[in-house]
Amino acid sequence: MPTRFWSVTSGRAFVGRLETGSDLVEEIERHCAEQGITAAQVTAIGAVRRARFAYYEQDTHQYRELESGSHHEITGFVANVSLRDGRPFLHAHATFSDADGQTLGGHLLPGIEVFAAEVMIREFAGVALVRQHDEETGLALW
Amino acid sequence: MPTRFWSVTSGRAFVGRLETGSDLVEEIERHCAEQGITAAQVTAIGAVRRARFAYYEQDTHQYRELESGSHHEITGFVANVSLRDGRPFLHAHATFSDADGQTLGGHLLPGIEVFAAEVMIREFAGVALVRQHDEETGLALW
Amino acid sequence: MPTRFWSVTSGRAFVGRLETGSDLVEEIERHCAEQGITAAQVTAIGAVRRARFAYYEQDTHQYRELESGSHHEITGFVANVSLRDGRPFLHAHATFSDADGQTLGGHLLPGIEVFAAEVMIREFAGVALVRQHDEETGLALW
Repeated sequence: MPTRFWSVTSGRAFVGRLETGSDLVEEIERHCAEQGITAAQVTAIGAVRRARFAYYEQDTHQYRELESGSHHEITGFVANVSLRDGRPFLHAHATFSDADGQTLGGHLLPGIEVFAAEVMIREFAGVALVRQHDEETGLALW
Repeated sequence: MPTRFWSVTSGRAFVGRLETGSDLVEEIERHCAEQGITAAQVTAIGAVRRARFAYYEQDTHQYRELESGSHHEITGFVANVSLRDGRPFLHAHATFSDADGQTLGGHLLPGIEVFAAEVMIREFAGVALVRQHDEETGLALW
Repeated sequence: MPTRFWSVTSGRAFVGRLETGSDLVEEIERHCAEQGITAAQVTAIGAVRRARFAYYEQDTHQYRELESGSHHEITGFVANVSLRDGRPFLHAHATFSDADGQTLGGHLLPGIEVFAAEVMIREFAGVALVRQHDEETGLALW
């Protein structure tokens, strides 16, 4: 698909902390669903008890799932919310650090257990971001 | 503590550059204290002459301090400002890269010497984020 | 140069997706030039077909260019737009992950080929950020 930009205005904004033991991705999506947030920018800082993420095989169009049972700090986080199958979907990538400061990361999956996390959500107004299958990449893009 | 989100509005916003040789964390906190900023989202890009950060031992509730005397680029940065012991406190995590592009990171500590840094601070209005001891995690959470 | 912060207000905001095969840095700069955006905060999430970035040698004041021909996810991204030589210039650093979740990163250069990328641009109003040579660091700073 060609490059496209949409002009947006600022909607609501939320800051939150997530419960220890909750699921990082699902807990943010739950808040968005409760509040009717369907387009937003999201960031987070904190630590997790286990990490689960993926790498997308660009040639075969398949996700390769990765995980780490170690405890990690979140040292990078980029994310947005859009609509996928009619529900708010969190598209998030993160970098995680370990006890020696070494880092790893990828596309976040459900199954990341929160130790402590502080989240910021900035809603976009004036735009509908709806994910649909893109033939060229095999991804659901808006 | 249970998951909780607060609705916030946008306060003031600042962009800044930090002096070469200054302390990354303390210099941002100094600006917040001078301006009376007690709740904000912060991001930064730049390079440092030495890095100092920590990994939180989730089982023993102790920080393990790590450092690198090398020069690094900042390749990921997530942070917020809240009140701790009555003063603006910067909670920041970052990823740093080295001369070969390899990365490391963690929870930022004072002692990170700025080479060059460009900082963005977005104040939250309508909320008081006050850190207090949380028994379950051993952390000071808001 | 001494630490300096500027108070700014919010200008326009844009969300966008970049075309597969486009140049990550140049495509964002192109949109800014078309829209007359000369000061902004930028973030991005996505994946690239090849990465090209640099490490700044703080002692010799020279960039060391690095690259990876592998496919990568973007797991951290910090960036801003300012004016350099009269045109919008994207100053961006990023962390990239590979098929095993390992990460690398640095200061982004032209030549990063987009697989899929979602971009957020928040314009700053009320400030002119103009890059000029700084003797102490050898960098073009605002």
